[in-house]
Amino acid sequence: MFSTAALTVASLLASQASAVLMHNGVAVTPQMGWDNWNAFGCDVSEDLLLGTANRMVELGLRDVGYYYIVLDDCWSDGRYPNGTLKPDFTKFPNGMAQVADRIHALGLGFGMYSDAGKYTCGQYAGSLGYEQLDANTFAEWGVDYLKYDNCYNEGQSGTANISYARYDRMSQALNETGRQILYSMCNWGQDHPWDWAYLIANSWRATGDIYDSFDRPDVRCPCSEEQGFDCAFPGFHCSVMNIINKVTWFIHRSQPGGWNDLDMLEVGNGGQTDDEYKIHMTMWAALKSPLIMGTDIRSLDANAYTIYTNPAILALSQDTAGASAQRRWRYYVPSTDMNGAGEIQMWAGNLAQGDYVMILLNAANQDMTMNATLADVFLDQGGAISAEAKSNWDVYDLWANRMPNATANMILDTNSTVGTMNGTSYLYNATAQSYADGIANNDTLLMGTHVGTWQAGAQSTWSATVPRHGVMAYRLRPQGAPTMRKRDEL
Amino acid sequence: MFSTAALTVASLLASQASAVLMHNGVAVTPQMGWDNWNAFGCDVSEDLLLGTANRMVELGLRDVGYYYIVLDDCWSDGRYPNGTLKPDFTKFPNGMAQVADRIHALGLGFGMYSDAGKYTCGQYAGSLGYEQLDANTFAEWGVDYLKYDNCYNEGQSGTANISYARYDRMSQALNETGRQILYSMCNWGQDHPWDWAYLIANSWRATGDIYDSFDRPDVRCPCSEEQGFDCAFPGFHCSVMNIINKVTWFIHRSQPGGWNDLDMLEVGNGGQTDDEYKIHMTMWAALKSPLIMGTDIRSLDANAYTIYTNPAILALSQDTAGASAQRRWRYYVPSTDMNGAGEIQMWAGNLAQGDYVMILLNAANQDMTMNATLADVFLDQGGAISAEAKSNWDVYDLWANRMPNATANMILDTNSTVGTMNGTSYLYNATAQSYADGIANNDTLLMGTHVGTWQAGAQSTWSATVPRHGVMAYRLRPQGAPTMRKRDEL
Amino acid sequence: MFSTAALTVASLLASQASAVLMHNGVAVTPQMGWDNWNAFGCDVSEDLLLGTANRMVELGLRDVGYYYIVLDDCWSDGRYPNGTLKPDFTKFPNGMAQVADRIHALGLGFGMYSDAGKYTCGQYAGSLGYEQLDANTFAEWGVDYLKYDNCYNEGQSGTANISYARYDRMSQALNETGRQILYSMCNWGQDHPWDWAYLIANSWRATGDIYDSFDRPDVRCPCSEEQGFDCAFPGFHCSVMNIINKVTWFIHRSQPGGWNDLDMLEVGNGGQTDDEYKIHMTMWAALKSPLIMGTDIRSLDANAYTIYTNPAILALSQDTAGASAQRRWRYYVPSTDMNGAGEIQMWAGNLAQGDYVMILLNAANQDMTMNATLADVFLDQGGAISAEAKSNWDVYDLWANRMPNATANMILDTNSTVGTMNGTSYLYNATAQSYADGIANNDTLLMGTHVGTWQAGAQSTWSATVPRHGVMAYRLRPQGAPTMRKRDEL
Amino acid sequence: MFSTAALTVASLLASQASAVLMHNGVAVTPQMGWDNWNAFGCDVSEDLLLGTANRMVELGLRDVGYYYIVLDDCWSDGRYPNGTLKPDFTKFPNGMAQVADRIHALGLGFGMYSDAGKYTCGQYAGSLGYEQLDANTFAEWGVDYLKYDNCYNEGQSGTANISYARYDRMSQALNETGRQILYSMCNWGQDHPWDWAYLIANSWRATGDIYDSFDRPDVRCPCSEEQGFDCAFPGFHCSVMNIINKVTWFIHRSQPGGWNDLDMLEVGNGGQTDDEYKIHMTMWAALKSPLIMGTDIRSLDANAYTIYTNPAILALSQDTAGASAQRRWRYYVPSTDMNGAGEIQMWAGNLAQGDYVMILLNAANQDMTMNATLADVFLDQGGAISAEAKSNWDVYDLWANRMPNATANMILDTNSTVGTMNGTSYLYNATAQSYADGIANNDTLLMGTHVGTWQAGAQSTWSATVPRHGVMAYRLRPQGAPTMRKRDEL
Repeated sequence: MFSTAALTVASLLASQASAVLMHNGVAVTPQMGWDNWNAFGCDVSEDLLLGTANRMVELGLRDVGYYYIVLDDCWSDGRYPNGTLKPDFTKFPNGMAQVADRIHALGLGFGMYSDAGKYTCGQYAGSLGYEQLDANTFAEWGVDYLKYDNCYNEGQSGTANISYARYDRMSQALNETGRQILYSMCNWGQDHPWDWAYLIANSWRATGDIYDSFDRPDVRCPCSEEQGFDCAFPGFHCSVMNIINKVTWFIHRSQPGGWNDLDMLEVGNGGQTDDEYKIHMTMWAALKSPLIMGTDIRSLDANAYTIYTNPAILALSQDTAGASAQRRWRYYVPSTDMNGAGEIQMWAGNLAQGDYVMILLNAANQDMTMNATLADVFLDQGGAISAEAKSNWDVYDLWANRMPNATANMILDTNSTVGTMNGTSYLYNATAQSYADGIANNDTLLMGTHVGTWQAGAQSTWSATVPRHGVMAYRLRPQGAPTMRKRDEL
Repeated sequence: MFSTAALTVASLLASQASAVLMHNGVAVTPQMGWDNWNAFGCDVSEDLLLGTANRMVELGLRDVGYYYIVLDDCWSDGRYPNGTLKPDFTKFPNGMAQVADRIHALGLGFGMYSDAGKYTCGQYAGSLGYEQLDANTFAEWGVDYLKYDNCYNEGQSGTANISYARYDRMSQALNETGRQILYSMCNWGQDHPWDWAYLIANSWRATGDIYDSFDRPDVRCPCSEEQGFDCAFPGFHCSVMNIINKVTWFIHRSQPGGWNDLDMLEVGNGGQTDDEYKIHMTMWAALKSPLIMGTDIRSLDANAYTIYTNPAILALSQDTAGASAQRRWRYYVPSTDMNGAGEIQMWAGNLAQGDYVMILLNAANQDMTMNATLADVFLDQGGAISAEAKSNWDVYDLWANRMPNATANMILDTNSTVGTMNGTSYLYNATAQSYADGIANNDTLLMGTHVGTWQAGAQSTWSATVPRHGVMAYRLRPQGAPTMRKRDEL
Repeated sequence: MFSTAALTVASLLASQASAVLMHNGVAVTPQMGWDNWNAFGCDVSEDLLLGTANRMVELGLRDVGYYYIVLDDCWSDGRYPNGTLKPDFTKFPNGMAQVADRIHALGLGFGMYSDAGKYTCGQYAGSLGYEQLDANTFAEWGVDYLKYDNCYNEGQSGTANISYARYDRMSQALNETGRQILYSMCNWGQDHPWDWAYLIANSWRATGDIYDSFDRPDVRCPCSEEQGFDCAFPGFHCSVMNIINKVTWFIHRSQPGGWNDLDMLEVGNGGQTDDEYKIHMTMWAALKSPLIMGTDIRSLDANAYTIYTNPAILALSQDTAGASAQRRWRYYVPSTDMNGAGEIQMWAGNLAQGDYVMILLNAANQDMTMNATLADVFLDQGGAISAEAKSNWDVYDLWANRMPNATANMILDTNSTVGTMNGTSYLYNATAQSYADGIANNDTLLMGTHVGTWQAGAQSTWSATVPRHGVMAYRLRPQGAPTMRKRDEL
Repeated sequence: MFSTAALTVASLLASQASAVLMHNGVAVTPQMGWDNWNAFGCDVSEDLLLGTANRMVELGLRDVGYYYIVLDDCWSDGRYPNGTLKPDFTKFPNGMAQVADRIHALGLGFGMYSDAGKYTCGQYAGSLGYEQLDANTFAEWGVDYLKYDNCYNEGQSGTANISYARYDRMSQALNETGRQILYSMCNWGQDHPWDWAYLIANSWRATGDIYDSFDRPDVRCPCSEEQGFDCAFPGFHCSVMNIINKVTWFIHRSQPGGWNDLDMLEVGNGGQTDDEYKIHMTMWAALKSPLIMGTDIRSLDANAYTIYTNPAILALSQDTAGASAQRRWRYYVPSTDMNGAGEIQMWAGNLAQGDYVMILLNAANQDMTMNATLADVFLDQGGAISAEAKSNWDVYDLWANRMPNATANMILDTNSTVGTMNGTSYLYNATAQSYADGIANNDTLLMGTHVGTWQAGAQSTWSATVPRHGVMAYRLRPQGAPTMRKRDEL
């Protein structure tokens, strides 16, 4: 009976702050930030990081919660004679500590990258065998976040205990430094990290690498969906739908302090439609993936900006219950696209304070009228016989209040959110007031737009027309006092 | 040739009492009892346990054989400075030893719970690395039964030898205490415990966690049926039919002293129809699963009460041959329900003293007329050419004499079975006379209701109309002397 | 390029006697003998063994090559205080050494049984941890053959190296005794023994246990055909066709000194038709399985006797090339039986001295006219472009000269083959002249009955009507000098 | 994010010579040579090797790049008393060092064979446990290349770390000798060497053994295509299409210094048509497999000779980007052959200096008109939205300038390429000028024949009629300056 952790922790968190297993105190909700890889690969530099960090402040991205600036692979130039990692001074002429300082000065956290192997994926020096030395170096530099990759690992994988031992060494080394460093495991889901990584890491990659496609299959992401929980070759070039459908089986293993990582966001990189990017963002939030922007912040367009900053979606991500939505049903449909894919899905999950989220995902090749029943939404509460299905619910549309492009363009053009933050209702300042408090205060930015009442009744149906490759996402709030669940798990 | 153990042991048991491999002497037939988890989760207390225990005595549940009162997860409050487990005194103000004493005083056994990991599933202190200390504590408290879970196990799984070593440590620790403690492994079937757990445990969970549904698929129970014997992610929310169809392949590995555990019973929890609960109870008995009630005994209704107490089914469970029924055939049928499932199955197995059980399971979405031939029932005895197929058989319906609701309600209303035990023919006092002796004496409560003769002949057919999602279960007794099998295995 | 071993060894054997890798010198051709399990299970005794041994001599079974009398499980009574295995003196009042002596006196070899686990499958003392002590005991008793089972192995399986280490311990122990003991591994194909067992054993079981059925599926033999080479749960109750179709993939790994063991023969046990038993016997011979009779020799009927003793089939089994036939093609056919199975197959393989075997296997539910082309038969020699396809071949029917039942009944009634051995042409005395020499001398008993010439030509076809669930098996001999293959492997 | 290695290395190579991970400096492009196995098996001798080497020089095969003469299995005669490997002096009367000297004198490299097991596949002495001693011996003899097989490995496989450890021992031993020896791992793809072998070897076999068939299935190559990346039994007799379809998933793991080895070439051995051999050669080149000729060089016919020597294909193989082509799409078609196979595929990949390769593979049973779009070709560059899809491309046919048979026969008849090398335009002397330099110089031999311009446009289509079981292969060169990719991986 291993399924109750998330809820238990959520309950514990209400009363005791130290309840998160991974005792480093970070990632109590899924981490948010930016990483250069998806947009820049190895083309890294001090300028890129600091320029991005500055603009994240200017655009309000920091204040809506994107905290970590993560420098990915290709930053090093081997090791000093004493073994210490040496930065590439061409790219980082002032060294890493100064980068960290300047990022910190902006109110942001600094993330770096290494690899649990002989080399990084880009074939720079890896940390296997250098765990404590490198952890110390990162701590000295002021690093707040470590992404830890899996390339060139000398064959140290194949069963959970082999992978656990390898990744645990860095976990212990980071703890040993005394510095609070978020530990982001990147082993692509090998050896089922959702079974064991929670004890040692704040997040763990759950699949092969993402690429900027909604549902195109690629030979380099070969495991079938059914192999999602036992994939011998995670690969890369995995589409958004591929990742969603693979993590479905084990996504419930996320919980405060330790999250399934669905990989960095592609929003803004041009390979998907606006509706597809909305699916991408919505599902990453509902499934409690870390939200790491993966595009060029300095040339962000309005569509991407308004997706990344939608307060109602970010509140979903940062909900303190920390419980992933679950897929309630899925149907294949005849309307398939050029990739041969066509399906619709309904997802639901519980949020803090008795709220719920309900998502209608349309991956068919045409607009679809989709229907959900309370019995399906509240399956885990008892379905048709649950108290929840006998209540009325207020329904809030999480995308209805998305910032208009005109407003976004004003911000992007002026590099300033001052007016917006103060005078409009499209950005939420989570630095000023947490998402949890905002929800507790019924902040309308976070609740979304009220669009109706869902009447009680097991077969009572919510119906919506969802655009082709699009999504509708709702917060459900009980009318009257929320039902208290007397136990964790039906 | 590994298939003969159950029969061998059964034969040995007739002549020598110490023949069970797991030498602790318990679970010679599948254990029976109650566990709080399915109905109460973490909401545990002294009051719950003692209130339940009292009512189990009052309702005669103790006397029909439900012996163990098992306290599941969430009972602890960490460890004392010396490392000893500390109870949560809010929940158990008088400590665990007193709970045990009072349960013992009622003529019942006391079970507790821990986990072969760093934490329990509810994130309380686990026993990994504390095996002997915790075993000693349990023994001192007077514990008779340990349920030992699998969460947060530090990746110590993946091959049989890894899991074996981890679970063997507690097995040895329990033996070391000198107290007779039933050891109930709960590793969800990982690494094929049916291949190795018999040496170290009295039962082992065989699949992901059950939930209160007859056949609804759930994404959190992802392994396909064919993966039943090699499931990389057992999960939870597994339906009754999912469990039955997964354990089919290896259920024969049960034998006296060590049983495949199909998880706790959901009868009474409201998610299934009465007919579905009858299937659940019948199959758990025929497949020799431990029978652990998982509902609120203090608010038991008549339907659940009469299922839990049906003497003819309990005699099937507690049969001394300890041989699981086997599926003889299965057909998918066009009549499928809202979950897309529809099938019929016939199961048969040998019992002590030459009797057999034959079960017609209808999981189609309509009533079905089902037929069984003697050739199919006696497949393991040689089928069409067996001596058994050439005999006449008396057929007893195991559900025909189920207690009427009126009688049940009288008992439930008065909290007393006195009148019933003495004056009616619906409850069997297994404390006064064992099921084995009752069967040997042809006790009509245990035999079921005689409903006809099955004439000899390989293709001689027994036909019955089985309701939608329902079951018919029969005891077959040879007319004339039983055929003695000269060897264990065809 | 691991496929050439069999041919290489065969070539080497012609010139140097010590070429077999497993240097104990036995099983240069697949071992032949008798084992009590299939017919008697645990019901073993001195009387059974010696009675059987005597009758094997009387019936000429020894002289046709069935050499080992193997006592299976359930013979022991634990261990003496010094750890030595103790026989059950009720079953073996004179101990094992005397049994061995008397069997040796009859010109036969004596086999025994133990288990690479804590217990045998019948739950008697196993040899895990006692390897050298038990090997010494067996050697002292005069044992010539050890069947070594896999039950209760304490979870020591899951990867090849774990299983290898466990089975290697007994291999080394046997070698250490200095006595020549055939080592028959029985780990049911777990962890792919065809990949590694050749180094340490003379044969290794390749699948789950056989049962006496031609093609009936059984839930206890759950691995699919495609899982034949990676089966997580071999089980038992595997039918003849199930075994054939599972071993197809790796059967070529057999070679002189080390054989894939398809399990003991069921011929004579009553569960199959005479034609089905002919398939069973033919394929076990062509696939170079050990030929271990598994029926009651003392009540053998004529059909079984004439199958077990067919000289042309035994010469196929004992061919010195030691190369298994390979399946050339397989077609599913619409004519399926009550088990839903229906298919036809063609197998071919090379024999010593340039001969070949070709088999038409009809597992359809009706008589079938089957056709084979030279291109298919000689696929491994180059198929359509091979020199072999351009030759004419004499065709010999291996079953055409099967002993008539009248002759068999005379032998069975009189317990004597004297007349037959000397005066008829149905039994071959391999003790007097080896099968290799007999073939070299064109002994007509071994060649089979000449039934025609197969004309040269890639698409030249041999056609035969094969009965339902039946087989035709042919020896092909080149007209003119055999083509010499200049290399091992195309 | 493990997919960028090849490109990174390629970039690095432009600036720093030591960038290849496997620091022995060889196989910077896929190795080329000859191995005796496919044509001669165990029938090896000094005469064979030297005769072949001489002829390779005479026929210009050395000068087009086939450098290594590899002696495969069956060359040894056990070990000397001091443990050193002893050559079979019947086959090699002057020992191995002299063979090496004479091969070196011809300007060729010398390869030998051993096995990471107790025995080689041919059952000669293996190197397991003798790694350093044998490496020293090979180095002393002047060996430049070691093919290291996987037979009889004592069960040391099953997880990556087990196989890694075993193969790493020889890797370290070779490095220890100080001699530059190309290390060619031959473990048939077991335990996913593409995940780990790059650290220790220059190439690793990726599948079961090849045989000379285009697409015929064989029971001895049992893993399905989908099992290509997790095959429990690689086997042998794998067809060309079987291999191509299995390596598709992980072929991108090749990179300079470490290559997926698709096994030795069968071109010239007679089992395939000329068109099929062209597919074989083209795909091995495009997929960056080592190119090891596997036929009898002394009796090479014109068809095989002109395939092996096609300069435009060899330039594709030896391209310095070292990036395998990727399959862009695949369709099954109704036109299937006698093996039931029928499909078409399009492959594309990037080459050095901004060129690309595009391949149309027709495995249907009839000529097919095939179409490719720029969006598909440049999928990895962004597909429809890529800069590449907006460029015009010059298209060069890589097979259009294949040497005519008349020219080839002249060379083959005279054993001399002198005239050809100097006077015709069919052979490229890579010894005189590297392929990289030739391409940089727009050498028309290497570019292929210009056959048109592919106009810009995402859906702009290149169309060609491809013969049954045939291939069209093109080099694409941008008109105007090549687009610089600013990062490694979309």
